[in-house]
Amino acid sequence: MEHELLQLTSQISPLDLGWLARAQERLDSLTKPQGSLGRLEELAARYVAIREEIFPRFERKRVVVFAADHGVVAEGVSAYPQEVTFQMVHNFLNGGAAINVLARLVGAGVEVVDVGVNHEFEPGMKLVSRKVAYGTRNMAKEPAMTREEALRAVWVGVERAQEAVEDGVDVLAPGDMGIGNTTAAAALTTVFTGRPAGAVTGRGTGVDDQTLSHKVAVINRAIALHKVTGDDPLGALAAVGGLEIAAITGFILAAAAARRPVVLDGFIAAAGALVAVRLVPAVADYLVAGHRSVEPGHQIILDHLGLKPLFNLQMRLGEGTGAVLAMNLLEAGVRIYREMATFAEAGVAEKKG
Amino acid sequence: MEHELLQLTSQISPLDLGWLARAQERLDSLTKPQGSLGRLEELAARYVAIREEIFPRFERKRVVVFAADHGVVAEGVSAYPQEVTFQMVHNFLNGGAAINVLARLVGAGVEVVDVGVNHEFEPGMKLVSRKVAYGTRNMAKEPAMTREEALRAVWVGVERAQEAVEDGVDVLAPGDMGIGNTTAAAALTTVFTGRPAGAVTGRGTGVDDQTLSHKVAVINRAIALHKVTGDDPLGALAAVGGLEIAAITGFILAAAAARRPVVLDGFIAAAGALVAVRLVPAVADYLVAGHRSVEPGHQIILDHLGLKPLFNLQMRLGEGTGAVLAMNLLEAGVRIYREMATFAEAGVAEKKG
Repeated sequence: MEHELLQLTSQISPLDLGWLARAQERLDSLTKPQGSLGRLEELAARYVAIREEIFPRFERKRVVVFAADHGVVAEGVSAYPQEVTFQMVHNFLNGGAAINVLARLVGAGVEVVDVGVNHEFEPGMKLVSRKVAYGTRNMAKEPAMTREEALRAVWVGVERAQEAVEDGVDVLAPGDMGIGNTTAAAALTTVFTGRPAGAVTGRGTGVDDQTLSHKVAVINRAIALHKVTGDDPLGALAAVGGLEIAAITGFILAAAAARRPVVLDGFIAAAGALVAVRLVPAVADYLVAGHRSVEPGHQIILDHLGLKPLFNLQMRLGEGTGAVLAMNLLEAGVRIYREMATFAEAGVAEKKG
Repeated sequence: MEHELLQLTSQISPLDLGWLARAQERLDSLTKPQGSLGRLEELAARYVAIREEIFPRFERKRVVVFAADHGVVAEGVSAYPQEVTFQMVHNFLNGGAAINVLARLVGAGVEVVDVGVNHEFEPGMKLVSRKVAYGTRNMAKEPAMTREEALRAVWVGVERAQEAVEDGVDVLAPGDMGIGNTTAAAALTTVFTGRPAGAVTGRGTGVDDQTLSHKVAVINRAIALHKVTGDDPLGALAAVGGLEIAAITGFILAAAAARRPVVLDGFIAAAGALVAVRLVPAVADYLVAGHRSVEPGHQIILDHLGLKPLFNLQMRLGEGTGAVLAMNLLEAGVRIYREMATFAEAGVAEKKG
């Protein structure tokens, strides 16, 4: 399967600057002072360059929420019990979670994927069942996944993105649900950015000071135990990552290969992106950083990837919530680009001198 | 008419903290870690407290774009010729401007009001004609308006907000169009915040360094010439303000009196808010700061009013563009509050310990 992944990643190319220039030319002809829509213009130009069409369609939006459990919760690193993962999957399917509410607001579809929840779901639910394992193993004692499991989880994400593209989805966002997943995300952040665990680790769903120190110690122990380095991204993902994070990595790779932008949510999505960019640096061109999460590791990843978040609303929920709000800003930019009148069309005078 | 204004402003009261607490109690019962939606939760609680209803409706949104001209353009303070004001009014009415595009995206209605454009519009257009004058006078030589004109312009804004409320509008935003209006906004900012004109004045639609220095000199000259102080808000508005800024002041006052939130756009809307808050300090409770404009005076006003913008997208267009995007975030908060499942409803376990 590593061979198939190589085939996929070979399709990802950096953006053509010519398309950015062509898009900016149109933006400058619209009835507004040049550049006055700031980052909305930047988003529009990026979208045009990703799609390589002068008037690209922007209709279908989808957030795919990958859910999985984490063996490391046995170490007591989370403020919530593990069963919250599957309970929240039910909540997603019933439309009662934050991601459902915000996706409805912006007109995005929500798909929920079980890539590794420690629970047997009844058949017949609107859940995409792609369970690779019943959660990861406890990284403090053994590698979270085998390399084979990590690759299978990556491939779950690849297929979800490919199916979305087949369904005509224009913009994608990965969401996440997994009690314990900020521990895995922090471990990956330390491995790939070289920053100490103490700097990248936050309170997740709300642990106290003592649990926070313990969380940092667990991460350091796991990285040392498995001799994890950033030189083998898939090995690192397997040793200290998570099934949903691996799926997010694959999802991002396949979206970039299909020339679709990926709007990132918070810390977990960024950790998946970190692995994807390490595998294929050009992937960064396809990423839009949504919001800035309260988790300290999130900003560290964004800086590392050269991404600037669109807003900072002090959010720290995950699920894709920050991403769907940001999708709306991307749509705003594209609509401006597509729908505004030019100076010539509107008969408006241009700048003096 | 000052008497009628006093009657209106006497209806504005500070928010009841009890409503904020009641709203937070519900927010804390929803299936997410407490506080994890950050400022979206803050917006929801504020909306509940403004409306004083436990499940307030949030359906109709309207941006009212007040257009007017500025005599001070005779001093050469703007990068665009004055006719752009009326040309842009046509563009608004034809749906081709940025505000039309963004309002369509978020489902807000757009109303365009001529409160003082230096142009004779043909009858029969979908323009709300409330022309107080054919633009202000040149503040560098004489007061921009008489006190009576300023009050009439304020009252135009009052009536537009009142009519919106009668139409069932739940959330309002003032927009602006007026070549030269950043000069008036900067003058008011200097008067009411005490910061020097050099610190609050920016490039507007894009003037060069030389014009920027000249703009600052014009503002200082006008303030000195008319002996403007912040102690007489209506006098200051008349001397160095603008007809659309006066209308925005009235619009905000009437919205607060009717218990409706006002989402602020950039520098011009903030200048109108500055006057409104000086008249009635409790008005600040009803304001939501949308984005942070590139204009330096904008952040100075927001700091002065204790408002924190929701995002910073390097925008500097006006028209209400930043406000309608922010309306969407307010709606996101309110929908979260109204539509999310509680822990009890969803059968999700709460935080440990």
